[in-house]
Amino acid sequence: MGRVVTTPLLESPLLSARLGGRLLVKAETLQRTGSFKLRGALNAMLPLDQSQRRAGVVAYSSGNHAQGVAAAAQMLGIPAVIVMPADAPAIKIDNTRAYGAEIVLYDRRQESREAIGRRIAEERGAALIPPYDDARIIAGQGTVGLELAVQAKRLGAALDAVVVPVGGGGLIAGCALALAAESPKTEVYGAEPAGFDDLRRSLAAGERRSNDEAARSICDALQAPMPGEITFAIHRRLLAGSLAVSDDDVLAAMATAFAELKLVIEPGGAAALAAVLAGKLAIEGRTVAVVASGGNVDRMLFMRALGGG
Amino acid sequence: MGRVVTTPLLESPLLSARLGGRLLVKAETLQRTGSFKLRGALNAMLPLDQSQRRAGVVAYSSGNHAQGVAAAAQMLGIPAVIVMPADAPAIKIDNTRAYGAEIVLYDRRQESREAIGRRIAEERGAALIPPYDDARIIAGQGTVGLELAVQAKRLGAALDAVVVPVGGGGLIAGCALALAAESPKTEVYGAEPAGFDDLRRSLAAGERRSNDEAARSICDALQAPMPGEITFAIHRRLLAGSLAVSDDDVLAAMATAFAELKLVIEPGGAAALAAVLAGKLAIEGRTVAVVASGGNVDRMLFMRALGGG
Repeated sequence: MGRVVTTPLLESPLLSARLGGRLLVKAETLQRTGSFKLRGALNAMLPLDQSQRRAGVVAYSSGNHAQGVAAAAQMLGIPAVIVMPADAPAIKIDNTRAYGAEIVLYDRRQESREAIGRRIAEERGAALIPPYDDARIIAGQGTVGLELAVQAKRLGAALDAVVVPVGGGGLIAGCALALAAESPKTEVYGAEPAGFDDLRRSLAAGERRSNDEAARSICDALQAPMPGEITFAIHRRLLAGSLAVSDDDVLAAMATAFAELKLVIEPGGAAALAAVLAGKLAIEGRTVAVVASGGNVDRMLFMRALGGG
Repeated sequence: MGRVVTTPLLESPLLSARLGGRLLVKAETLQRTGSFKLRGALNAMLPLDQSQRRAGVVAYSSGNHAQGVAAAAQMLGIPAVIVMPADAPAIKIDNTRAYGAEIVLYDRRQESREAIGRRIAEERGAALIPPYDDARIIAGQGTVGLELAVQAKRLGAALDAVVVPVGGGGLIAGCALALAAESPKTEVYGAEPAGFDDLRRSLAAGERRSNDEAARSICDALQAPMPGEITFAIHRRLLAGSLAVSDDDVLAAMATAFAELKLVIEPGGAAALAAVLAGKLAIEGRTVAVVASGGNVDRMLFMRALGGG
């Protein structure tokens, strides 16, 4: 118990008044490790038996999943190897190491993290903890949606829509499953960086589409190449759509979260808030919740959002 | 119901590991209006009868009490006049106005806010809502301590000490009363800016001492001239001491809260965290909770804390 923080569902009455609707923010930035990733990692590791735990776990991640797996492994006394891109934010690499994990860096443009991860898993007999395309991971991340539904009811809020940042789509898949059960009238939307809007295009096409390899975004946490197989099967069935946001939309949302909510949100974690603040989803007269999914942002980028970078 | 947020008691395992003790942070920055002041303001206004409510309320404050009274008045449909120093942070003046209050600005070095507040109260028959030296205010702020005691128990944490930022001392008086009842073995310490350490000197002298008028600090929320009469009677009986912190200690604590806790804390709100991080109170092998009492900080000052100002 007490391994995962029940993160608060916050509201700024001033911000809601300005938007003409009710905006609720699920502050998953306050989760241990600074993002929701701890939830799925713990859920995937808890069923491992003693001999599996001794052999350890391996994961590949641009940062938040890395920290989630490393922290979960530390809590459970399991050795962890994390494969991270050499250009991941320094804070994410440092923190992953601080949770006691062994770090293997790779070049994102030359090497395949999947191949490196699989090789280490084979060599050591370690269990691979995938970042999103896995039923245990999806179920773990879905506890964000469960909490959100319970907390909204407690606030007397009937949720018209929930918006969730999307990388590989594990968080939104889990949230959509939870909300379908707990709050079936609520529409669930993804929020993606422009250029990494694979989910938006996949939903339109009815099948998985990948992103252009030349695409760039400040949202380092939302750069999966395409929706997962398992996640997309859930997305197709349960999502109302997905909304693309620009880097400027994201920076503006980070500044608003600082001023109005006193939250530190990283770029990818601010995508859902950005979608609402930039008017990609109607909120006037409605109640909309957004998930602020992570807060692991370097100082310089945060200062850029505040207008000083 | 739902007027006041039950703010989370947060913990960074990495930070605790670095300190060699367990550090818990009561994130009152996430309270509506961005500080604890809403609690006392609501508690002071709820007993007002219909004719008192029609006549309205008046308050004087450097900022957070202003927002707390304005927001509480708006929730209860009571007209509010707030007397604020012209050099208060812009965000605090703007937000107070946004809650629908009428603002009267004054010059902190030339005029007496108490006199202006009393005059307006007499002219309009409005009820004065004092910032700290009032039993209803102290009891309202004390709900921070009540929540903290309950939440610490839920985390399995036996609190050795709690550190609370001190301006006029209403928050710490209420917290000390609550903790004396709920967690009697816990020592309660104040945290004050150097130069505004009237409580520390008053406790040593056994009677109230005032601050030098020439003192300056970035902690705009902690600049009351001396402890209140009612608050100091509680302080003398229940506090273990008070700790003075420098502006640099406070800026470093704000940066740590950004990186490790993803919290936006204003200078005064970071005083208690600063006292622990700067080693003013032993934490090794112990469990210490600090109250992060407010988050209403201008962008430029926050960037200064992050090293860019």
